[in-house]
Formats: sequence, structure tokens, C-alpha cells
Amino acid sequence: MAKVLSGAGLRGQSAGETALCTVGKAAAGLTYRGYDIDVLAEHASFEEVAYLLLYGALPNRVQLQDYEHKLMQLRSLPEPLKAALELIPKDAHPMDVMRTGCSFLGNLEPEQSSEQQPFSGQLASADRLIATLPAMVLYWYRFTHDGVRIDTQNSHVASLAGHFLTMLHDEEPSALHTQVMNVSLILYAEHEFNASTFTARVCASTLSDMHSCVTGAIGSLRGPLHGGANEAAMEMIEPWQSADEAEAALLTKLANKEKVMGFGHAIYSERDPRNDIIKKWSKKLSEETGDDHLYSVSERCEAVMWREKKLFCNADFFHASAYRFMGIPTKLFTPIFVCSRITGWAAHVMEQRANNRIIRPSADYTGPDHAEWVAIDDRP
Amino acid sequence: MAKVLSGAGLRGQSAGETALCTVGKAAAGLTYRGYDIDVLAEHASFEEVAYLLLYGALPNRVQLQDYEHKLMQLRSLPEPLKAALELIPKDAHPMDVMRTGCSFLGNLEPEQSSEQQPFSGQLASADRLIATLPAMVLYWYRFTHDGVRIDTQNSHVASLAGHFLTMLHDEEPSALHTQVMNVSLILYAEHEFNASTFTARVCASTLSDMHSCVTGAIGSLRGPLHGGANEAAMEMIEPWQSADEAEAALLTKLANKEKVMGFGHAIYSERDPRNDIIKKWSKKLSEETGDDHLYSVSERCEAVMWREKKLFCNADFFHASAYRFMGIPTKLFTPIFVCSRITGWAAHVMEQRANNRIIRPSADYTGPDHAEWVAIDDRP
Ligand SMILES: CC(C)(COP(=O)(O)OP(=O)(O)OC[C@H]1O[C@@H](n2cnc3c(N)ncnc32)[C@H](O)[C@@H]1OP(=O)(O)O)[C@@H](O)C(=O)NCCC(=O)NCCS
Ligand SMILES: CC(C)(COP(=O)(O)OP(=O)(O)OC[C@H]1O[C@@H](n2cnc3c(N)ncnc32)[C@H](O)[C@@H]1OP(=O)(O)O)[C@@H](O)C(=O)NCCC(=O)NCCS
Repeated sequence: MAKVLSGAGLRGQSAGETALCTVGKAAAGLTYRGYDIDVLAEHASFEEVAYLLLYGALPNRVQLQDYEHKLMQLRSLPEPLKAALELIPKDAHPMDVMRTGCSFLGNLEPEQSSEQQPFSGQLASADRLIATLPAMVLYWYRFTHDGVRIDTQNSHVASLAGHFLTMLHDEEPSALHTQVMNVSLILYAEHEFNASTFTARVCASTLSDMHSCVTGAIGSLRGPLHGGANEAAMEMIEPWQSADEAEAALLTKLANKEKVMGFGHAIYSERDPRNDIIKKWSKKLSEETGDDHLYSVSERCEAVMWREKKLFCNADFFHASAYRFMGIPTKLFTPIFVCSRITGWAAHVMEQRANNRIIRPSADYTGPDHAEWVAIDDRP
Repeated sequence: MAKVLSGAGLRGQSAGETALCTVGKAAAGLTYRGYDIDVLAEHASFEEVAYLLLYGALPNRVQLQDYEHKLMQLRSLPEPLKAALELIPKDAHPMDVMRTGCSFLGNLEPEQSSEQQPFSGQLASADRLIATLPAMVLYWYRFTHDGVRIDTQNSHVASLAGHFLTMLHDEEPSALHTQVMNVSLILYAEHEFNASTFTARVCASTLSDMHSCVTGAIGSLRGPLHGGANEAAMEMIEPWQSADEAEAALLTKLANKEKVMGFGHAIYSERDPRNDIIKKWSKKLSEETGDDHLYSVSERCEAVMWREKKLFCNADFFHASAYRFMGIPTKLFTPIFVCSRITGWAAHVMEQRANNRIIRPSADYTGPDHAEWVAIDDRP
């Protein structure tokens, strides 16, 4: 299975095996365990997709009900974790809060493992994180921004999509918003060896614990070249009041050789299949809210980037407007990505462990050949 | 620069360039920016090595004094961080505590960066972490184990080596202990693209912040195949009361095909140059403390593993006995590794940023070719 490395960033280089996902088949496809992303986004719930990724197959009705029920039971935050979250200032970045919350939970509820049954608690830790990551970020957010201590446990909203929006807005979302949020969580759930997932696998390959793997992955997802792009895209389009204004500003950016967030992809070469889906929902939300420019600004950006640079929208670009239409503050955009991708990360951690060798590449050395020690008083 | 991938774990595969370190030149060598590890361990202080790695050259006397002074000024922990550490239970793993402490500090003192000067605060964040990571773990350790709140700032002990031991034992260490600790910190400071450093670089490649990169690296170092090996080695040899007992037990382990922690290496094929150095110091400490079996047990393990499997001690094996002779609790072994390796991690993060492309490999797909959606009530 020898492959050739071309260029930096390990682009196009196989770093292992996976049965979880294909990205870019026929330049544009995306499947989770063989299921096409379009089909999942149309028919599935996020909980169904989480089950598919973690447990290996789509659940039947009883399994799904049990799983939803289990996740609901796992939503409460331990008191010391809440106390720690309250110590984090309001102006912190919510991704830093999630990274810290995930790491903190690892102190209180370490993954169970024994010599006889290594990693016997991995699914339990993964499910607990799926259930609590939304609670962590929103507990902190509502406490520091609104001065309230939300109850993350007692809610009859079964879906994680609806639960998130309810904790944020203190009222149950409309059916449309729940549906869009559900689709969004499905689109973000899994994406093969992207940088954050690869971070989780490198960490898993040392046989470290689940919380370490997920904490590291959150840190990688935070970067603007990765998950942070949905926030960066929103910050870019927010000030533009019309499609023409957007076009002029974009052209200036391109002339200055600035990177435009929410466009381009390391693997897809023609289009990102997630974009078609979220774009459709963004349009629907735009109509529902009576938006008079944000959607058309976004569409114009897409047209200009394609016309000028043959760059297409990735998953992040129309997520920005979709989330805005649902009243989600910009700085919570990437945290939602975490609430979804935790499923893919955990599945990859388990897959790495099942057939592990420590991930330890080499490097090309570009430094000095040999350096002679010089006594401190003889140094320049 | 096409290279061929052989086997899993990216072993032997170049994943980028570095000017910081060579590992395994002529099968055994180790250099930091061209300086041989033997020379550094004999002549340098840890602060000198940290300066070399982060600032690019050995400091002259004034630069070194300034740098030592700067690090001393940076030792205090913010109140909310202390409060968060106090919330972590006594039975937590200290590596989880450090991962959490590092992440928490990122909320309070995020790395500074601006559009004009991206990452302008990276050295400041790195120095702050070098100065505070020892304080974080020992503040928590002494609080939960001894019920005291140590003052991490006010100490006239200039060296980080001496500072660590003073915070731990509440008294200044002997010259010998300070020296061994200093050597240990030098040996662990940097090691090219090992799993934790690679974690930090993957994270950096998304343009995430310094605290995310270091937090992720701590999580990877925790694993028993990586930094966790010094603790695992200690747990293994601790019960053995004689060299003969050790030999018999080791042979059983080998017969059971168990991995023996502290032996073998992904890159070195003949010996780990760090072992010769720490072994010599472990011997000296053994004589000083009047040890009657731990050193000879360790030596026998080395002989048996070589005789039976041609496996040599890596850096971790004699670190176990050396740390034990200095009265360091086993669960603080890997945290000391963190206090040292933070220098290498930070240097790699800066190097990655200086010439960045997102690290996003591909994978070989082994899953189902295509899966057909089945309505939930039709599932098995
Ligand atoms: C996703 C991304 C990191 C992929 O990186 P990559 O595989 O290393 O691709 P490259 O950076 O080599 O891109 C190839 C060329 O297209 C250009 N390009 C890629 N994405 C671009 C963008 N969003 N805006 C402007 N130019 C872009 C690059 O500058 C490069 O041009 P060059 O060859 O003249 O240097 C990159 O497209 C990007 O930074 N996009 C913006 C961030 C983003 O939206 N991330 C979310 C991804 S889901
Ligand atoms: C360091 C380490 C992870 C390198 O891993 P690697 O490059 O993937 O090397 P491999 O695991 O392929 O080792 C090659 C062979 O030696 C064996 N081996 C390697 N280290 C061994 C050890 N410590 N004890 C027993 N056997 C060992 C492997 O089982 C393998 O045998 P196989 O070919 O029959 O399967 C590995 O040597 C190890 O696990 N050591 C113990 C943990 C440790 O001390 N880590 C700290 C490193 S500084």
C-alpha cells in the first residue's frame, strides 16, 4: 500500500484506514458508513446518525428510542464543572470554554478502562460527551451573558437539535428551526481525516483517554482554516448591506490576496455536497424571517468566488446565514460544530484503538548540520 | 520530495520540515538546533535550552539572566485558575489536571494576535506556560494531597528545576537533585515529530491558538505508548525486590507477549542517547540514597530486554528510578515531561505557523461500498 506524498500538509497522503466515511468520491461525494449525505440529511435524525457512527448500523425503532432516552438522561452537568464554567470570563471564546469543559469533565468522570477490558468505557464516555457538550457551552454562555443558571437536564425536548435551541433561547424552537438544526448537526457529524479528527486519532494512537482525544480535537477545530471558518464567514458578510457592496468588497479582498473564509477545500475539487443542502435551508429561513439582504449577499459571494477563482462554498459558508436567521450568536457557530463532530471524533478514536500503531511520522531536517558548544561568556 | 509510506503510523514518512531537531541520525543521535544532546546535558541549564529552542540561538550571559528573570516573574497563577484547580478531586490524574489548567489559562489570557501582526503574542504565551505549568500541577497536588495552598511566585530559586522540587517538597533541593532535575528537563525538551509534538503541529496548522496546541499535546503525551511510559515503567518495577525477581517477572511478561514500558522506540533502532545520560544520574542517586535494589532491578531489566528481544531502554526507563530516588511521586512523572516538552511544542507551533499548510491527510477506505436507506420500521 505504498503511496506517494505530494506537497505539504500530507495532502493526498493516506495516514491510515477508515470504514466510517468517504470524502470526495467522484470529486464531490460524502458518505457515512456508506450512506449518502443527501439521504441522511433528508431522512435521518442527528441521534440516528450518531448511533450509526458509534454503534455501526442504523438503529431500529426500539434502539433509537432507547438511545434518545439514554442521551436525555445524561444531560446534567456535575456541580464542580458548573462551578469551573462560572469562573470563565464572559469575553472568553466559547471554543476555549468547550475545550476546558471537556477537559474538566475528564477529571471528574475519567474514561473507564481495565487491563482485562481496555477502553471498556469508551462508548459511555462518548455518549456522555454528546449529551453534555451543548450543555457546557450554553451553561457558561447564559450564565455570563444573561446572569442565569440554566437547568440543562430537565427538558422534554428529545432531540439534541431542539435541546440546544431551547437552552439558548429559553423557549422551544419552531419545527422549522429544529429541522434545520438537525440537518446542520448531521452535515457536520463526520468528515474522514480532517485536521481535528486527525488530531483525535494521533492522540488515541498513544493510547490516551477519550477526553484527551476530544479536548485536542476541539482545539484544532477552533482554527479559522477549519471549523472556525463559519464564524469568520459571518464576520465577513455581516457588514455588507447589499449584494453589490459584497461583490465590490470581495473583489478588493481577492486583489489583496486575502483568503476568503468558507470557500475552498483540501479534498473536494468541484463542490462540497454539504453546501447544496445547507444553502437550501438557509434560503427557506431567509424567506421565513423576511430577510432582505443576507441571503442575496451570500449568493453573490458564491457567484463571485466561482467566477473569479473557481472556488466553491464549503459546508461553512451558508451555515453562517442559516445560523444567523435562527438567532444564534456568531461566537456559538463553531461550538455547534463541536456538538455534532464529537460523534465522528469518538468513532475515529474507537476505530484507531481497534487497530493501533502510534502515529509518529518523521520530518525533513532543515537546520544546521552541527553546532559547536560555545562557553556563555564567549557568545556574541 | 516524494517519499514512500511504509506501514502504519506514518512511520518513516516525512510529514513536514523542521530546523529544531534531529532524531536517530546514524541510528542513535539527537541534536537540538545542531547541538548534541550529550553536550547540552553536560553544560547547559534548562533555561538555556528553552531559549535556544524558542529564540533560535544560545543566549549570552545578559540574555540568559534576563530570560531567567522573566520566567521567574511569570510564575504566579491567576485566582480563577487556582479556584478551578481546587475543584478537581484528589484522585484525578495529574496529566488531566495539567491539560485542564493549560486550557483554562487560555480563557483568562488568550494568545494575542492581530490582523497586522498575526501571532504577535506567541512567545509571550509560550514563556507564560513554561513558567506556570509546574505551578499548576503542584498547586493542585499540594492542595488536594497536603491541604496547603502553595505560593508559586515568591521563591528565590531561579532554576525551574529547583523551583519544581521546592514547590513539591517545601524545601530547597540539594545541588545534586537540582542538577539531575535540570538534566532531565533538558533530555525531555524536544524530540522532532513525536506524537504529542505532531498533535501540536496539526492543531497549529488550522491556525488555532497556542493554548489549544499545547492542551492537545498534553493529552497525547498522557498516553502510555508515549510520555506515560515513565509512570508505567515505575509501576512495573516498583514491586520487584531483587534483580532475580525482576528477571523472572519480565520473562513471564515477554512470554505473554506483553509490551514492556520504557523499552523500544519508533525511530531509534540501536539505542536512545538519552538513556545513557539519565542512567548515569540514576546510578549516582542510587548511591547517594543508599538504595539496595531499585537500580540493580532496573539494570537487570535492561540486560534481559536486550538479551531476549534486542530492545533497548528509551528515555523513560531510568527516569523512573531517578525520579523515585528524588522522592517524586509516580503520578508526577509524566507531568515533569510536560514542564520540559512545552519548550519543544511551542517551538514547533511557531515553526509550523511560519510556513503553514493545513495538515489534512487522506485515508484508505475499508467500509461498505454503498448503503441503501431503510425506513426505520423495516430495520432488523
Ligand atoms: C480549506 C483550505 C484550508 C484547504 O487548503 P489547501 O488544501 O491547503 O488548499 P490551498 O491553500 O493549497 O489552496 C489552493 C489555492 O487556492 C487558494 N485558495 C484556497 N482557498 C482559498 C480561499 N478560501 N480564498 C482565497 N484563496 C483560496 C490558495 O491560496 C491556493 O492558491 P495558490 O496556489 O496561489 O497559493 C483552504 O481552501 C482555505 O483556507 N479555505 C478557507 C478556510 C475555510 O473555509 N476552511 C473551512 C474548510 S471546510
Ligand atoms: C515506542 C513504541 C511505541 C514504538 O512503536 P513502533 O515504532 O510502532 O514499534 P513496533 O510496535 O512496531 O515495534 C516493533 C516490534 O517490537 C515489539 N516491541 C516494541 N516495543 C516493545 C516493548 N516495549 N515491549 C515488548 N515488545 C516491544 C513490538 O511488539 C513489535 O513486535 P512485532 O513486530 O512482533 O509486532 C514501542 O516500542 C512501545 O510501545 N514501547 C513501549 C512504550 C514506551 O516505552 N514508550 C515511550 C517511547 S519514548
